[in-house]
Order: sequence, then C-alpha cells, then structure tokens
Amino acid sequence: MTSQGEHHDLVGTLTGGTWTKPTCPCCTSLNVEPLVLMQLAENVDPVTKKWIISRLEAPVRDGGAQLLVHSGEDDIGNVVVLSAPRCTQLHVTEGLGICKPYKDGNMTPFSYHDRNNFSNVDDMQVFLTLAERQYVVKYQLNFVRAKKDRTIPGVPESRGVLFARESLFRKLEKLGIVKAVIALHDQQKLGALAQAWYAKGQLLGQPLDSIQAYFGSSVAFYFSFLDFYTWALVPPALLGVALMLLPMLRRMAGGINTREGPEEGEPSISGLAVQAVFNMLWSTMVMELWKRRTASLTYQWGTMQLTEHYAEPRPGYHGPPGCNPVTGRPEACFPDWQRQLRVALVSVPVVGFFLVLVALGMASFYYCEALAKNFYTSYDSWLMTPVLYLPSVAHIVYGNMLGTLYNNVAQALSEWENHRDESSYQNYHTTKVLVFNFFNSFAVLFHIAFVKQDLPLLRKRLASLLIITQLVNQCSEVVIPFLVDRFFSSSANKPKEDDPEEDQLRAQGRLPAFPGLFPEYLELLVQYGYLSLFSCVYPLTALLLLINNITEIRTDAFKICRLFRKPFSAPASDIGVWQYAFEILGFVSVVSNCWLLLFSPGVNQLMQETGFSSHGALIFAIMLEHVLILVKMIVAFVIPDEPDWISLKKQQIEFRSVQALKQQKRR
Amino acid sequence: MTSQGEHHDLVGTLTGGTWTKPTCPCCTSLNVEPLVLMQLAENVDPVTKKWIISRLEAPVRDGGAQLLVHSGEDDIGNVVVLSAPRCTQLHVTEGLGICKPYKDGNMTPFSYHDRNNFSNVDDMQVFLTLAERQYVVKYQLNFVRAKKDRTIPGVPESRGVLFARESLFRKLEKLGIVKAVIALHDQQKLGALAQAWYAKGQLLGQPLDSIQAYFGSSVAFYFSFLDFYTWALVPPALLGVALMLLPMLRRMAGGINTREGPEEGEPSISGLAVQAVFNMLWSTMVMELWKRRTASLTYQWGTMQLTEHYAEPRPGYHGPPGCNPVTGRPEACFPDWQRQLRVALVSVPVVGFFLVLVALGMASFYYCEALAKNFYTSYDSWLMTPVLYLPSVAHIVYGNMLGTLYNNVAQALSEWENHRDESSYQNYHTTKVLVFNFFNSFAVLFHIAFVKQDLPLLRKRLASLLIITQLVNQCSEVVIPFLVDRFFSSSANKPKEDDPEEDQLRAQGRLPAFPGLFPEYLELLVQYGYLSLFSCVYPLTALLLLINNITEIRTDAFKICRLFRKPFSAPASDIGVWQYAFEILGFVSVVSNCWLLLFSPGVNQLMQETGFSSHGALIFAIMLEHVLILVKMIVAFVIPDEPDWISLKKQQIEFRSVQALKQQKRR
Repeated sequence: MTSQGEHHDLVGTLTGGTWTKPTCPCCTSLNVEPLVLMQLAENVDPVTKKWIISRLEAPVRDGGAQLLVHSGEDDIGNVVVLSAPRCTQLHVTEGLGICKPYKDGNMTPFSYHDRNNFSNVDDMQVFLTLAERQYVVKYQLNFVRAKKDRTIPGVPESRGVLFARESLFRKLEKLGIVKAVIALHDQQKLGALAQAWYAKGQLLGQPLDSIQAYFGSSVAFYFSFLDFYTWALVPPALLGVALMLLPMLRRMAGGINTREGPEEGEPSISGLAVQAVFNMLWSTMVMELWKRRTASLTYQWGTMQLTEHYAEPRPGYHGPPGCNPVTGRPEACFPDWQRQLRVALVSVPVVGFFLVLVALGMASFYYCEALAKNFYTSYDSWLMTPVLYLPSVAHIVYGNMLGTLYNNVAQALSEWENHRDESSYQNYHTTKVLVFNFFNSFAVLFHIAFVKQDLPLLRKRLASLLIITQLVNQCSEVVIPFLVDRFFSSSANKPKEDDPEEDQLRAQGRLPAFPGLFPEYLELLVQYGYLSLFSCVYPLTALLLLINNITEIRTDAFKICRLFRKPFSAPASDIGVWQYAFEILGFVSVVSNCWLLLFSPGVNQLMQETGFSSHGALIFAIMLEHVLILVKMIVAFVIPDEPDWISLKKQQIEFRSVQALKQQKRR
Repeated sequence: MTSQGEHHDLVGTLTGGTWTKPTCPCCTSLNVEPLVLMQLAENVDPVTKKWIISRLEAPVRDGGAQLLVHSGEDDIGNVVVLSAPRCTQLHVTEGLGICKPYKDGNMTPFSYHDRNNFSNVDDMQVFLTLAERQYVVKYQLNFVRAKKDRTIPGVPESRGVLFARESLFRKLEKLGIVKAVIALHDQQKLGALAQAWYAKGQLLGQPLDSIQAYFGSSVAFYFSFLDFYTWALVPPALLGVALMLLPMLRRMAGGINTREGPEEGEPSISGLAVQAVFNMLWSTMVMELWKRRTASLTYQWGTMQLTEHYAEPRPGYHGPPGCNPVTGRPEACFPDWQRQLRVALVSVPVVGFFLVLVALGMASFYYCEALAKNFYTSYDSWLMTPVLYLPSVAHIVYGNMLGTLYNNVAQALSEWENHRDESSYQNYHTTKVLVFNFFNSFAVLFHIAFVKQDLPLLRKRLASLLIITQLVNQCSEVVIPFLVDRFFSSSANKPKEDDPEEDQLRAQGRLPAFPGLFPEYLELLVQYGYLSLFSCVYPLTALLLLINNITEIRTDAFKICRLFRKPFSAPASDIGVWQYAFEILGFVSVVSNCWLLLFSPGVNQLMQETGFSSHGALIFAIMLEHVLILVKMIVAFVIPDEPDWISLKKQQIEFRSVQALKQQKRR
C-alpha cells in the first residue's frame, strides 16, 4: 500500500525514540501507522510518562491496552503517538460486532477465530477503515482499568488514588496529566476526500462511503441524513412555489372579473389545505424511507450487528465491582432500577423545572413589554425610547444565561445517571438538551399561532427566522472560524509541507476540538419544525430550506475537514434519538396544521360566506385531524422499516448463530 | 414412570397388530404411548393403508415421518394409532426452538447435539409435555411431502396426482382418505386436571402450568389471559359500584335540601369524568402488565425463542419448488411481494366491501323501520302489527347470512394469501374476522352514541347487551352441548372404564372437533369494548363482566376438557393479534369517552347553568383527549414490556449464540 509505505517514511522522521514492540510475534511489522496523538501535561514527570507507556504497551491479559507506542522526541517530551498492532485491531473489531465482507461476499460479524475466511484480512489498511483503526485505539485506551487500588507513579498520593476498576485514562484526564487524545488526520486522504466532497463545486451527491471510511459511521450518518433530507425537500419546495404562483397567475389571467381573492402573498384556502395534507403525508414518507435507507447503510458500513451492549462499558461508568451478568466479564455493576430512579425522580423534574423557567421568562417578557409600551406612551419622549427595548434585551440575556446553565446541568445529570453504553448516554443527553432547545425555539411561535391566533404575525416571524437564523448560523459556524483560522492563527498552527512529522502532529493538537454533531442535528430539526409545523402559513419555507441545505452540506464538510481536530467516531447503526425526534414532530405537525387551517383568515371568511357555523368547522377540523393521524399510522405501518434483502441477510446471520449455538457443546 | 407403565399395559389391549419398530436403535423401547389417532375412510383400500403406514414409519432422510405406527385391529381397519420415538421427539423439539431446563437451571433452546446437558432428557414423559409430544407427531405428519410427482397406491390416477413438494396428508385429507387426525386424551391426567381446575368449585386461580402441559401453550395463554383480565376487572368493578352508591347515599344523607341531582340511575358528571379517566389509565396499565406477564409465561413454558420461521412451512403453503434462502433447505418459494400484493389488492378491498354491506344493512334497517312505523300508524290495525317486526327480522336474517358468507370468504382469502408460517396465517385470518365482527357488534352502539347522541338509549342497549349476550353465550356454548352430550349421545360415544383401549380411542374420534379459541377471544374483546368504550355511560359494566368471567373460566374449562376432541396446540409465545386488538381498543376508548362525556346530559346542564359555551366545552374535550392520549403513550412507554430478569435471560442466550457463531469455522 502506498499510504502505508509513506507512513513508514514519515515515521522515520520522528526524531528520537522508536515504536514499542508488539507483544505477539504475528504483529511484528516494519510499517507502523501513527493513528492517535496523546498530549500530556507540559510538566509531566518522566516516571509517570514511562509508566503510562508501560500500561499502553502491556498485553491485555496483564491489564494493558496492547497498543504500539512512540514516545515522541524523547522520554521527557509531552507527546505520545499511538498505533494498534494487527491482533488488537482484529480482537476489538470482533468485540464491537463490526461486520466485514466474508469470502462468500456477505457482510458477516467479524470473528477472530474464523479470520482467514474474511476478505483482505491480511492488510489492515484495507480491512479496517481509518476511522475504525483510530476508534480501536481509543477503545483500548478506555479499556485500561486498574485491577486494584493503587497510586500512579510520579503523582503524589494526596492528588488521588486510582481505585479498582476505575478507568485509568479518565483518571489521568481528571488529574490533568493527559490533556487530550487526538485522532490524527491523514493529509493525503483528507485532500482527496475534500476534493470529492466540496472543493470541486459540484452541487449534487456526496462521497458517503469515503466519508464513512475517513470520519466513521456516526459522522457519515449525519451527512447521509442531510443528503437524504435535502433531496426530500424538492417536492414540498416545488409545491410551495406552485402554490405561490398559482393565485398570481390566475389573477393575471382572469383580469378584473374574478371576485376579490385573498390578499397579496396570502395563499388560498384550498392551497393551505393541500399544503397541510401534503406535508403530513410527506413527513411520514420521508421518515419511513429514511429508516429503510438507514438499514441499507448499516449493512454497507458493517454496523448492522453492533454488540455495544456486550463490549466494554463507557469510561465514565462506575459502580460496585461485580460481574456482567450477560458476558460474565468483571466490570462495575450499577443496577438498572437505580438509574431509572435517578432519571424519574431527579432528571425529569429538573428538566421540567427549566421548561417552566423558559415559560415564565416568556410570560414576563410579554408582561414587561406591555408595561414598557404603556410607560412609553404615557411619557412620550425620545429619552424613554430605550425603555422599549429593555424587555427584549432582558429576555435575550435571560434566555442565553438559562441556556448555558441548562447545558451544564444536563451534562452533569446525564453523567450522574451513569449509563453503561455510550449510545444510551448520548440518547439520554440528547433528549434532555433537545427538549429544552425545542421548547425554547418554538414556544414563541406556538404562542403566536394558538394563543394569539395571529397568522400574519406568525408568517412574518417565520420568514424572518428562516432567513436570519440561516445567515447567522452559516456565519457563526463557518465564516468566523474560517477567518480566525486564516488570519490569526494560521502561521502558528497550520501544518506545512516541509515541517517534520512531529510538528505536523503537534499542529493538529492546536486545532479546536470538534463540537460534535448535536448543533448540526438540532439545526436540521428546528428547520424541519418550521417546515412541518407551520409551513401551511408560509409556503416558501421548503424552498428556503432547500437552498440552505445545499450550502449547509458544503460548509459542514469544509468545517469538519479543515477547521477542527478529527473527531473519534464510534460505529453507529442509526442517527439515534434524532429519528424519534423527527417522527414525533411529524405527529405534532398534524395537530398543528389542522388548527392553523381552522384559524386561517381564509377559512373564517369562507365560513361567514357559506354560513357554516364555527362549531361545525371545529368538528370538521377534529375529524380531519383524527383521519390524518390514522392515515399517517397506516402509512408508517405499511412501509417496512428495512428492505427485504436486509431482513433476509439478518435472518441468515440469526439462523447461523442459532445453529452454531446448537452445535456447541458446553463443558 | 407409572403413567408410562400403564400406557404399556393399555397398549397391550389393542387387539391384533403391533407397533412398528423405530428406525434407530436408541429409540427401541417396550413402552409406546399412543399419542395420535388417524381416522381413515371406511372403505380405504388396504394397499393405500399399508402405503400410508410405510410413509409414516420411514426415516426422515427417506422422506418419511419417522413415527411409530400401530395399525389398529388389523390391516383392514380404518384406524391408525401414532406415536413418536425419542429421536424424532428431540429433533422436532430442537427444530421448533423450544426451550428446556439446562443443567445450570436456565431455560435454554434445546439442542440435540448437546442433549445430555439438559435435565430429564432420558424420560420423554417428563422432558416433553403431553401437548408437545402430540404436536411433534402432528408436525411430522405435515413434514411428509412428495419428493417428485407420483400417484398414491390404491387410488385411481384420475382422482389426483401427488405433486412434488405437496403435503401428503393435506392431499389425503382432500381426497377423503384421511378423515381426521385426533390428539388422544389421557383420561387419568385429564381427570386430575379437571379436578384441580373446575370440579372442586374453587373460584380463584387456575392450574395454568398443568393446562399448558396438557393442552399446550396456545390454550394455556387463553386461560392465563382470561385469568389476568378477570383479576384486572376488580378495580373498575369496585369503582363502578362506588359511583353508583355514592349519589344514592348522598341523597339519603342530604335529605331534601340538596339541589335537584341527576335522575335516578344516572351517575353524576364528576363520576362520569372519574370513570372515563380511570378507564383510560386502567386499560393501558392492564395491557402493559399483560405484556410483562406474557414474557414471564413464555420463559416458564419454554416458548421464548421459537423459531417457527426456520421450521417447516405450514402444510397449505405452496409455490414453485426452490430453496429457503435462510435455512437453505428445499421448500416451496412464494415471494413475499406477491403475498403483499394479494393482501393489498384483493383482501383489503373485499373486507372493505363487506364492511360497507354491514353499514348498508344498518342504514336500510333504520329506513325500513321508519317506513314500517309510518305504515302502521297510517293503517292502525292489529293486523298490521307484524309489519313492525319485519325490518328487525329481515335485518337479523341479513346479518347472519352476511356473517356466514364473510367467514367463508375470509377463510378462503387467508388460505389464498399463502402464508408460510402458521402464526402469520392465523394473524391475518384473525384480523379479517375480527374487523368484521367488531364492526358488526359496535356499529349500532356507535351510531346511537355519536350520531343520535342518545345516551339514555345507549345505556339501556348496553345493559341489555351485557345481560342477554352473556346468558345466550353461556347457554349456547355449554348448556346445550352438555345436554346433547349427556342425553342423546352418551351411550354411544362416551368412553367407559371397561371398554377395550381401541374402543376408547374410537370414542374420542366421535366427539365434535374443538371450535378453536377465536370465539372465546372475540367474546372477551367485545366485552372489553363495552367496558372501555362506553363504560362511563353504565358504571356497572365492570361488575357484570367480572361475574361473567368467573363463570366463563369454569364453563370454558369444562368445555375443553369434556365436550370436544383434544385440540392440537402449536407452541405459542403470545396471544398473537389479540394483543394489538386490545391495545387499539384502548386508544379508541379515549376518543370515545371524551365525546361521550361531552354529550352527557349532565355536562349539558352544567354548561347551561354556568354559561360555558358549547364551543368552549368542545375545545376542552379535544384538549382532554390529546392530553389523555399523551399520558397513555407515556405510560405505555415507561412500563417495560418484559421484566428485567427475562431481558437478562434473553441477552444471555443471544450473547451465547453470537459467541458460538464466532467460535465456528465454516468450511
């Protein structure tokens, strides 16, 4: 492999020190690929560094990580470069339940015992993707836990004892000895990926498989979803444009002999109804088809049969030492009921309390605004103008402070809930932040729509939100970091071609950490909310979102490639809790659209003209809502969640496992 | 084993003929238990009988059923008695995925290869239940399929060729050569079961494990559900009684100085509301807790990991010869999409058409009734009185004819949909019949409640339905068959202690076939519908149902033990589609109760008194409905579907299978 050979050359340029030897003879190789950089504290004691290296290279049976370690320039430097030998790579691949192509061409959960029947198993650079190889190193780091209470050499006992079964690297991070663990970029691959992804200026398609190989499946799932969702916006965008143009055309064609139509810019009632029903069916279809797409992608990316539940717990997981009742391996045992109790009795009330604070904030804002207006009109002087802005400013400050506080509280709560699996932790954490942010984003709109019932105001607000938030987001996400990157820190941080390898690695450590996919998904969800909840008020929503998403794909791609450290990415089999969030929004949207339809001025006018009672209209709206929800549920039920060929593959694997279990005689 | 020994004695009394020898030496035993009786046509050709016996005793590898066969009195008689040797029993147990206690005490999917590590594997009478042993014989009968097109000896070719992969016994049944296949009662066990179940006159508890052992898990699930549901009726029954008594007590205590209360027998508004909300929460809790109970029972009964999908297809399944893509075994291959097409394009429209016919029937009934009344009042003569009854009679006749026709059509459609698995066939068939019957039972009530909005009429109708249908059901289900059994056919049919074994077996064949559990479940569902949909109208519903169920348990038990042939019962892991039917009813009930509350005279009166507009009341009802559905969904989500210990056991089995698959090297 060229890239392997090249890495070997580069490794040669690391000044001083060499790679540690692998503990098993089969893994001995001249070519070691630097995968992960571990930054230690500046003032780290050489004794500590040496001990850390010894833990890293020790075999798993002795409680080590069984990695290959390069101590940087010398034993005193504050950098350690890590790689993983073949055996470690393969064992972790098996432990995570990743599927790889078998010799019969099917993706099959990898088995170390049966490794020679898998394709390309001899060449790690082909067999595993870069993201997988790097995640293996990270996984092994988390794996290292103390066997019994002990002190860390070179660290005074007063600063902390490492308890039995405590995660070593979590402890080292807490003590400030390990500053950061960084996945290293492969500049050549990154260049090729960037070229195929955003640099060529093409507007359609993304190299999803290359993204998966380079950044891992959780990042690739985000971009796949973005891609899928962008394409899905085309039909509602076309419909929206058609509904905007149709009344104009009709007015132009019909001249003056048509009766007074709805006012300029306001869609007709039939248009509103078409839009509402279309949106409802559309959102169901999109989410159902996305589930099928997810199933195909998991097969393609080998994450169909992940066994996270049987793998090592996340490093933060703690509890009295015990034995995993399923795998029989020693690990911390924190009972489920205790976690559920914490969620039910602490987390849920705390989240509820914050939601109440948001609602109170909104209520006092409206109250103070009214007060200020009264005050202004009674004193009527330009000196008093700032008073008019006071409530808004106070509300914004309050909102921001509350948001920051809430994020910290949510983080602490999710950590305290003590989830065993990373995905479970992420789901609970995401749900918390999601509920708050969603409430924060939509409370005002819901208030305008259903309490004030002021649809023109809702339309104006929606249009400004769509345009302004998009501009602000794109700016804050990309333009500012890009400018900062280019003009303020480029000379110091950016890796240059002629730097020695060592410095290139260090330079990557100075980039800011990747902020995660949460804000990206949240942006999509809020957008989707504007579209599905209120779109029958403002038909151009879909078109604006479509335009936004096409640029969003490129800016997000640029961001993750150039502006941040390469994130570690755990193998993922779906977009997690976001799937549910989008589906729930779909249901809420049916309710919302039916009511908006009922409140719309056109319908009111029609009712007056035809003499239809408001009571009758209300009953009609309710029946429509019930029928639409029923249709939605039937559509969701009828479309299978995975394509037939995926079910077949899964059944084959299941059948083989059942057969294998039966063939096995236990002692 | 005593029962085994005894069977051996009984077998000795079979006149003439002996059991065929098992094909494998390990199964040779002096004690053969007669499990299944096969009744052939009176005029069956001895050549055909001989050939059938040869197919039954041939080993599986030669396309036979590998059973033990006893040819009755002699080779000419029209009776064949069947049993299964140990090897066949064990192989089928493995094939069905039944769990049995492992030596470590856990229920584990049985593996023939690892058989010696299972408890009691040497004694088939203990290892498998009677129901399982009998089902094994039935399963093996279905298993026999022709390898290539051939004729049946002794049957003229004109009457039918047995095609390749066609089920032999289905063909023989079609040709009328096999009249019936009957699971044999074990009089001693049956006596003990009856004693423990209903004879002692105890009102609480049923011997569920013995029922499962004797009748199999699908029957046992019905009785478990009946049991569970009866207990669950206690709280609403108490509440109903309390709500009835409370206003009476208050009136008695308050004397005349209280304001005019609601009329006699009509519950107060707050009572109605309490009842509606309570019912909604109650129905959710009951179904969620039943799911947990189901999970425990499947573990206890070893049906937790059934692999019906990998076992033999049901005998009626046909299609071009091919290979099962999962198991790789040769079998008919009927593509899924073709089945889905048949369901979507034929079955669904046909069912819809019949529902329209029901609705039309109801509409014409109302129309004709009005006509008849007009006619009667205009002619006003006693000679015209029959005219008044004409519409009702016509409607009843029409309803019955339609019902019978529909049942046949539904049967034919489900057969034609060509389901591979018995459970899938059952689910589709049940759904069809269910939808029709449900519509039939409730259309009139819904019409009264929501179109006529006549709550007093609804209350009267509900009370009469509850009392009359219960009396009619109990009569038609038990009393009449019992009387017929005792006075008309007892001398000829009933087995007597001193009859030879042979005659006892024949006598069982003369009992009517068990009509299946469908009518029993349907009765429960319709009852549950009365309770959950309309109970806030008539609070005593739950009490009446409770009383009905307590007798229902005993009569159903008596019926299945004494009045019918013993049914074969496939291993089951739940109550199938009935679970969903009950859950859907729960949702419909929220909608229904909210509207009933809105229409109730008490609420109307209150609205008039307080000046609350009907518009406001409507909006309040809608909001209440939405909140209640949300609460219902949260409750359903929060209660886990299976107890933690069951999930743990399942995870352990899954983990072991995954490990076993990894340990296995494929060639």
